[in-house]
Amino acid sequence: MQPYELSLTAASDAIRSRRLSPVELVESVLARVDQVEPQLGAYVAVTADRARRAARAAEHEVAHGRYRGPLHGVPMGLKDLIDIAGTPTTASSRVRAGHRARADSAVAARLADAGAVLVGKTHTHEFAYGLTTPQTRNARAHDRIAGGSSGGSAVAVASGTATFALGTDTGGSIRVPAALNGVVGLKPTYGLVPRHGVTSLSWSLDHVGPITRTVEDAATVLTALAGHDPRDPASLDVPAADYRPADDPDLTGLRIGLPRTHYFDHVDPEVESAVRHAVGHLEALGARLVEVDVPMTRYLQATQWGLMVPEATAYHERTLRTVPELYQADVRVLLEAGELLTAGDYLRAQRSRTLMRQEWARLWETVDVIAAPAVPLTAVRAGEETVTWPDGTTEGVSDALVRLSAPANITGVPALTVPAGQDAADLPIGLQLLGRPLGEHTLLRVGHAFERTRPTPAPTPAA
Amino acid sequence: MQPYELSLTAASDAIRSRRLSPVELVESVLARVDQVEPQLGAYVAVTADRARRAARAAEHEVAHGRYRGPLHGVPMGLKDLIDIAGTPTTASSRVRAGHRARADSAVAARLADAGAVLVGKTHTHEFAYGLTTPQTRNARAHDRIAGGSSGGSAVAVASGTATFALGTDTGGSIRVPAALNGVVGLKPTYGLVPRHGVTSLSWSLDHVGPITRTVEDAATVLTALAGHDPRDPASLDVPAADYRPADDPDLTGLRIGLPRTHYFDHVDPEVESAVRHAVGHLEALGARLVEVDVPMTRYLQATQWGLMVPEATAYHERTLRTVPELYQADVRVLLEAGELLTAGDYLRAQRSRTLMRQEWARLWETVDVIAAPAVPLTAVRAGEETVTWPDGTTEGVSDALVRLSAPANITGVPALTVPAGQDAADLPIGLQLLGRPLGEHTLLRVGHAFERTRPTPAPTPAA
Repeated sequence: MQPYELSLTAASDAIRSRRLSPVELVESVLARVDQVEPQLGAYVAVTADRARRAARAAEHEVAHGRYRGPLHGVPMGLKDLIDIAGTPTTASSRVRAGHRARADSAVAARLADAGAVLVGKTHTHEFAYGLTTPQTRNARAHDRIAGGSSGGSAVAVASGTATFALGTDTGGSIRVPAALNGVVGLKPTYGLVPRHGVTSLSWSLDHVGPITRTVEDAATVLTALAGHDPRDPASLDVPAADYRPADDPDLTGLRIGLPRTHYFDHVDPEVESAVRHAVGHLEALGARLVEVDVPMTRYLQATQWGLMVPEATAYHERTLRTVPELYQADVRVLLEAGELLTAGDYLRAQRSRTLMRQEWARLWETVDVIAAPAVPLTAVRAGEETVTWPDGTTEGVSDALVRLSAPANITGVPALTVPAGQDAADLPIGLQLLGRPLGEHTLLRVGHAFERTRPTPAPTPAA
Repeated sequence: MQPYELSLTAASDAIRSRRLSPVELVESVLARVDQVEPQLGAYVAVTADRARRAARAAEHEVAHGRYRGPLHGVPMGLKDLIDIAGTPTTASSRVRAGHRARADSAVAARLADAGAVLVGKTHTHEFAYGLTTPQTRNARAHDRIAGGSSGGSAVAVASGTATFALGTDTGGSIRVPAALNGVVGLKPTYGLVPRHGVTSLSWSLDHVGPITRTVEDAATVLTALAGHDPRDPASLDVPAADYRPADDPDLTGLRIGLPRTHYFDHVDPEVESAVRHAVGHLEALGARLVEVDVPMTRYLQATQWGLMVPEATAYHERTLRTVPELYQADVRVLLEAGELLTAGDYLRAQRSRTLMRQEWARLWETVDVIAAPAVPLTAVRAGEETVTWPDGTTEGVSDALVRLSAPANITGVPALTVPAGQDAADLPIGLQLLGRPLGEHTLLRVGHAFERTRPTPAPTPAA
């Protein structure tokens, strides 16, 4: 096994015990970049020199007994919405030409303190406003979409060009590409990870979180990211915690909610079968299944769009007037549509969200975790705009991709996607686990129990 | 001194020690109602039978050793936006004809548990959407405005027809009428007092709080009202506390901010003089004065209106379509104007508020309390629409009344108005004290120190 193939946990165990040098690891990852990046297009910019310097510094520190913890010397990709002092944050957009961030974002600063090594900035669907990331190819099938908007981060982790990565998730943008590329994605509880210095799409729905190869890895990254920062007005003042799950896969006593509504409507039969199989496996680990009715599902789409569209337009107000031609057509039309919404439209969405949160709060009285598909289908071919369901109805690809992810953005609950098999074309399928607000410990425990004991082997870096 | 003239604290001391029966107190208040209410119009409805029954029950409980605490047997008025099960909440509006509340509001339930005796429901400017309360006359000068929107509550407390009352405050609606009638009004920290069951004007700015004759009384009522209620999404989960201030008037070490910007612009010279005199008194009690620059003042009005107008319109969306003719003209035009605002307008106001809160947070690093006028002028004559300032500029009366109150609504900080003298026409002047979020203890301590030691005598019930 090459170093670039190691999980974060395996790599950091090897670094800590000095069986692997950070320099060796980063060289392996950079060689992998040379090998696969031309076909994949996961990165906006690879900063190889910077990575080598950081790896040498990490090597030196570790060798001199100054080991900083499990991210020390580990190569990572950061979605190019995340500021790093002195470098451009392009948001994969021509609008940002000549940009240079003045200071580190909160998460970049925390990861730097933890000793992680930046490989480069990864592609996003322009300004995170879309679910395909057209610049990037799916790591498992180059003619398929990467998913988005954190497509570059998911493809980098899936293909071995980053040991872990950060994404952002406003309607599914961490979980969708993670699921479509066969890796793990975690959208934490709203407010748990500060967003200071991260380009906003829709501030009341935006989250930052990890994309990794294992649930254990996601927990390790979350441990470094979580914690209050007053510069993000939504940041929660929650005590620091170690989110890494124990190794015990016994789920006795845990109640897993299986949705009767919404989450299994218009889902590809192979996806449904894999997810139900995975849920059966959780039951075999001791969990009790409880059927649940997801509330207010017919308001989900209007609420998600009613919040996101005006907030996105507000963020882009100035550039939409001065340089509208620099936006991609798909993003520009969404931003311009946002100018037509009234304050009443937005307020209806805000009120609907409040009611939805109250209704969801009741769900958590009867279950500890909800299990569902992450996305209703596997990666479609690039350029496909609609999907046709067995009952003859058609749906926009973006609508389909966001449909099962958005509830966690609206309600703010944490949600995790874990690989749960492949379809007949060998395309990855994601099991989504949702938890109660600040229920990351339980969520990660269930995900880790699943990945440790699952009947199908974990996917390996692919390109 | 008649029982109706007693402060809440004096009345409850007398009840607890059985020198005064709740029945005697309520009869005194009801006789006062008969005497002055025809001239004042503070009440929508006086529920005398209900009050007598409650007073007899309180008398019985106290006599049998079941004293509930300092509100037990004390007569109160509730602004008619506050639900009481089985009775109408008219909001002083024809739109609410035939209304009947199904359950007690959170605050009504807490006051009932505390043994307070309801005298009746007090007038509000229709749906709290105005600053004059035209149905009600000023307690000190019948040709003058009561102020609003909690005009009925302030006039009832000032005239002796309630020992205390509740109001609501979205842009000054507790503090403005309290100041104009010479009583105490407290707008607590946003989220400290739950609003479940209270008709909303603008949920992101709405507060419920006490109107009383003394600061000590306000602290006693706040103690009964404060505390988490999950049915109000903005309710803070703060531990219960006794807010009653100690009797020590020593303010040594306290830093009082004296605004160089905004709060003394376009203020009537007699008001300014009285407030500066009061601040000098606080300095004599040991406080240190610190000049402060209130930040972002030129965005205050746009932010207040940009938040309030769309939220108010959203609340009235249905009735504005079905029965627009039932609204008063001044309220209807504001509600209809709200339909023209875009989501972008509202979002600009939300973002401006966020920035303003951050800027204000820095103020509290240098001062403990800010002292300012509550309103820039004393009560104008009913029907006056504009005020002309010495420099020749004119201002709408409502704009003037809300100008010094709104900052505490936008930022959510607690604010208290305390009587601080009269102008040449014997009209009351209010000193406004603002505190840091959840800084009610300090705020009430300063207000109480002032009222205990002030050079001018406290006003007595007037009509």
